[in-house]
Amino acid sequence: ERNIPLHTDAAQAVGKIPVDLAALGVDFLSVAGHKFFAPKGVGALYVRQGVVLPAMLRGGGQEGGYRAGTENVPYIVALGEACALAAEDLEAEITRQEELGRVFLAGIEKLGTDFALHSAQAPRLPNTMAIGFKGYRAADMLSGLVGLDVAVSAGAACHGDTTTVSHVLEAMAIKDEYAFGTLRFSWGRPTTRQEVEEVLDRLGRVLTSID
Amino acid sequence: ERNIPLHTDAAQAVGKIPVDLAALGVDFLSVAGHKFFAPKGVGALYVRQGVVLPAMLRGGGQEGGYRAGTENVPYIVALGEACALAAEDLEAEITRQEELGRVFLAGIEKLGTDFALHSAQAPRLPNTMAIGFKGYRAADMLSGLVGLDVAVSAGAACHGDTTTVSHVLEAMAIKDEYAFGTLRFSWGRPTTRQEVEEVLDRLGRVLTSID
Repeated sequence: ERNIPLHTDAAQAVGKIPVDLAALGVDFLSVAGHKFFAPKGVGALYVRQGVVLPAMLRGGGQEGGYRAGTENVPYIVALGEACALAAEDLEAEITRQEELGRVFLAGIEKLGTDFALHSAQAPRLPNTMAIGFKGYRAADMLSGLVGLDVAVSAGAACHGDTTTVSHVLEAMAIKDEYAFGTLRFSWGRPTTRQEVEEVLDRLGRVLTSID
Repeated sequence: ERNIPLHTDAAQAVGKIPVDLAALGVDFLSVAGHKFFAPKGVGALYVRQGVVLPAMLRGGGQEGGYRAGTENVPYIVALGEACALAAEDLEAEITRQEELGRVFLAGIEKLGTDFALHSAQAPRLPNTMAIGFKGYRAADMLSGLVGLDVAVSAGAACHGDTTTVSHVLEAMAIKDEYAFGTLRFSWGRPTTRQEVEEVLDRLGRVLTSID
């Protein structure tokens, strides 16, 4: 009504769930290639036709003047190809990833430790769970898992700091006793059910070793 | 004396001539990887220790907070490796490239057309010449050379617009009759003397076909 331009960060959505620009009605939408198997270092910004966006990086006239600098052509091609691949059988892949999530969550419950699945009642991605293990510290769990060849993240996206509580978890009003012990688990197209079970097994051993 | 920070764009220098930060005394120096065989899409900014530079891209804390965004690690590694390779036998390579330049310029003279080597009396890179061919138009010469598999640029760096005179050439007070017919020729480590002679031959044919 007031013609206020709206941007949404779809870095975690594109490639994982259907994204319908018309239905969203946003003016800007940003995409991070490495979230769906394009190389790290390329992304995209959707700009609705007719919306004025001042350039942040000025100088050369590259990318329609929006972002000066010689383009990384191979990565741009890779981003397009990754988009095409991500769209293949997306619904079937979502169903498969949701099933992996149910297996994972059931396994966590069997570990017999107090935990909280953050945003359990909200719409969530099919491939990601942020889980707070009560009384544990993320850094302790991380070092155990790293040694066992499992890559997980502490806290919220982009900021791997493990000594303070992520401002995102704080804003979500997660209690400290769960926030400090929060790990983010993600799976993807190549992840098998067997791997999920291996992670559960390793996680159980790590929690036991910390106790 | 007034503590004014000084930046220099060394995109065309690094990898081609020795660059001594201490001797230059600059506060900032920018580097473009693709100018010395690193992939397109990576560069570097030297920032003198203690000099304050506000970030242009804020958000994530990547690259010391100077430039937010997930890093393109393979390209960063490639830039370092390209630097190391560019430093190998640099003096000998400069001598070789200067000799190619002399061969090229002598060949241009033999073509028997009026031309001007821009900045002929100024210090110039060993691998690049911007030459204005009197009475010709860059676009006409370009289309002839493209068909013959020679890649050259019209006008000044970064802006390939061929219908107007480059603002750089204008600032250099190059006369219109030479400016409109200006091509930029570059050679590099892989360029052989035979290739230079082939370009001369092709250029001669293109000029003749336009006449």
